[in-house]
Amino acid sequence: MSESFDAVDIIRTKRDRGELSSEEIAWVIDAYTREVVADEQMSALAMAILLNGMNRREIGDWTNAMIASGERMDFSSLSRPTADKHSTGGVGDKITLPLAPLVAACGVAVPQLSGRGLGHTGGTLDKLEAIPGWQAALSNEDMLRQLEDVGAVICAAGSGLAPADKRLYSLRDVTGTVEAIPLIASSIMSKKIAEGTGVLVLDVKVGSGAFMKTQEDARELAETMVALGQGAGVHTVALLTDMSTPLGLTAGNGLEVRESVEVLAGGGPQDVVELTVALAREMLEGAGVTDVDPAEALKDGRAMDVWRAMISAQGGDPDAELPTAKETQEVVADADGTLTRLDAYAVGVAAWRLGAGRGRKEDPVQAAAGVELHAKPGDAVSKGQPLMTLHTDTPERFDRSLAALEGCWSIGGAQDVQTADSIVLDRVG
Amino acid sequence: MSESFDAVDIIRTKRDRGELSSEEIAWVIDAYTREVVADEQMSALAMAILLNGMNRREIGDWTNAMIASGERMDFSSLSRPTADKHSTGGVGDKITLPLAPLVAACGVAVPQLSGRGLGHTGGTLDKLEAIPGWQAALSNEDMLRQLEDVGAVICAAGSGLAPADKRLYSLRDVTGTVEAIPLIASSIMSKKIAEGTGVLVLDVKVGSGAFMKTQEDARELAETMVALGQGAGVHTVALLTDMSTPLGLTAGNGLEVRESVEVLAGGGPQDVVELTVALAREMLEGAGVTDVDPAEALKDGRAMDVWRAMISAQGGDPDAELPTAKETQEVVADADGTLTRLDAYAVGVAAWRLGAGRGRKEDPVQAAAGVELHAKPGDAVSKGQPLMTLHTDTPERFDRSLAALEGCWSIGGAQDVQTADSIVLDRVG
Repeated sequence: MSESFDAVDIIRTKRDRGELSSEEIAWVIDAYTREVVADEQMSALAMAILLNGMNRREIGDWTNAMIASGERMDFSSLSRPTADKHSTGGVGDKITLPLAPLVAACGVAVPQLSGRGLGHTGGTLDKLEAIPGWQAALSNEDMLRQLEDVGAVICAAGSGLAPADKRLYSLRDVTGTVEAIPLIASSIMSKKIAEGTGVLVLDVKVGSGAFMKTQEDARELAETMVALGQGAGVHTVALLTDMSTPLGLTAGNGLEVRESVEVLAGGGPQDVVELTVALAREMLEGAGVTDVDPAEALKDGRAMDVWRAMISAQGGDPDAELPTAKETQEVVADADGTLTRLDAYAVGVAAWRLGAGRGRKEDPVQAAAGVELHAKPGDAVSKGQPLMTLHTDTPERFDRSLAALEGCWSIGGAQDVQTADSIVLDRVG
Repeated sequence: MSESFDAVDIIRTKRDRGELSSEEIAWVIDAYTREVVADEQMSALAMAILLNGMNRREIGDWTNAMIASGERMDFSSLSRPTADKHSTGGVGDKITLPLAPLVAACGVAVPQLSGRGLGHTGGTLDKLEAIPGWQAALSNEDMLRQLEDVGAVICAAGSGLAPADKRLYSLRDVTGTVEAIPLIASSIMSKKIAEGTGVLVLDVKVGSGAFMKTQEDARELAETMVALGQGAGVHTVALLTDMSTPLGLTAGNGLEVRESVEVLAGGGPQDVVELTVALAREMLEGAGVTDVDPAEALKDGRAMDVWRAMISAQGGDPDAELPTAKETQEVVADADGTLTRLDAYAVGVAAWRLGAGRGRKEDPVQAAAGVELHAKPGDAVSKGQPLMTLHTDTPERFDRSLAALEGCWSIGGAQDVQTADSIVLDRVG
């Protein structure tokens, strides 16, 4: 079969800082899906894109080409508007768990297609799978029915959405080409646009535990994604949020479910509540719902009611005991003073090594493993007081987990606290 | 098996403008040869090297790693010193044909391992194969015997020299990563150093018909290769030579053999004679032979004697008629005046399209196809006078060949001639 373009010409154009045409981008993604463009050609192109960039028009075309590689979902038959949230990933980021039922309780349907974790950041599906009986896989029909009946669904993304992205992401993972803002933005947005949500709120994490280490990079990613969403007719807003220290007091699947239920019961750590409410407000406003206060819906149990219905609808028992780890070990403060710093990345790696995360896609995770924090930056601590408790079913993991935590906190004067005052650093959109 | 390094770490280091250690480079080339590093990883690394460069130490390590991937030849048992020449490739570049016997006639053995052509530049082996009976393939033993007996051998490089380079070159060809000076230099020099020559003279072409379009790029490539050769104990010199217009009056396999024989007979075009003698002087001086004048050895028939012996030794008949093309077509001057410009690249593409070259490695070439020039820049021409004759066995090729020649020459005043006064533009070493 004769092809319209030549992969080498396209690679050379981007290598030489040229601009790729809409037709070239549509062809190269389609030809990659058809395996006419080989992996070694796509990885060279990805490296050229990482180093030489793409402009907004090219990123939009790249995103559209990935959407065109698969199916699109359609929620227009629902009786209420839809809003979705995507987080770029952090340590202790369980926000989806209280957020989806909260927004549904306020009248907006939440179709949350989620993934599993890889490396030091957890995955929403891994967390919910700590609940006995809960099932991640739903058919499109079951998903639509649950959205209409319950208002919120958190489930696994089907393989039909943006399959080119799936293949490209696996390739980028082994070729050192993950860290390219145009490719990150188009990867996220192709799936979210294909999913068909009306409103999208992006939680772009910044700091040691996040993919983006600086506000500058995070803002560029946020602006790129917001432009892509708006260009595709999706009401899109991004919040830049702090990920220098873990979110809440837990990192680990079952531990985070427990904390999410505390938030849904009107309690829970202040930062988790603040971020859940801030994201809910953006989702509701985007959907045109301005007469409901999500902070109240969290406090008065309406969000908890939707949570229970949502978990039950997917086979889970909301009243079941969550699994507990076979072994625990405490880590204690080595001085008196104020905890000034507690590094998110180190805690994420420690939780991963305890069994909460996976190194390869096919690895299992432990439902009860993770790190429980007893103090956060700004808290007064005294020497010998427990700073955290490590949980695992496999105690031989304690040593490597403790090694990850070495040097990850500082104790000093109250004026030395390094964490931002508010978890929301900025807003784009 | 546990590996010492991780391919993704190495790719990321170069991507982020870091320096690769000697150990990392040795590992990545060895692991690529063992297929532990995948093609898609090596192509991403090649693109990062193309865009971010390598320093001299890295290029030396890369070259050594490719040499270490295969066997090394050894000419130390010969009774005379050895010298080799490598050209980066041009249009009408038949210099190896008169040069190898000329240098041998002056007392220095020439082990010339050559390749076939691809694209618009011809290959030395393709040219010699126009001689009835001549064989390119020799065993190492036959090659050594011919070097001792005749003094010159031009044959196909065995697959045992730098096999990592062979695999990497094929990969670069399909991933837009050919044009990286560190990779070009190490590709050429790994084979030449592994070949074991004592002296190496590099003919680095500059201009439209060459790989390097500017003197600046050509000088950087030349300096890099000279440093690599000297670092490996090979006496290495480079000449930068003009490739804005074809070398001599022929481009095409049999046509170039005929012209080479004219040069060996003491005649032939002045530019071919000048470059042959200049390269011979460098090779002889490098080998410590300063009491023989190569210009005389060309004129008095000594070089021709070695040529005849060299061709005969490899099964060729030096007295055989060369094949002639079934069809010819003339291209005539469209004005009176001085030919001020005749573009090498266009003539190379025209000869290729007539059947002298190949588009893919497995394609055959026509022995008699090519372009014969009747005028060179600086010559006076009159309207209607033949400028060139196209030769082919397949006349349906004339149209596409003529299309390549469109606008490839200019006729103007004598003061407008754009060709350099001397074919040798500069010397490095």
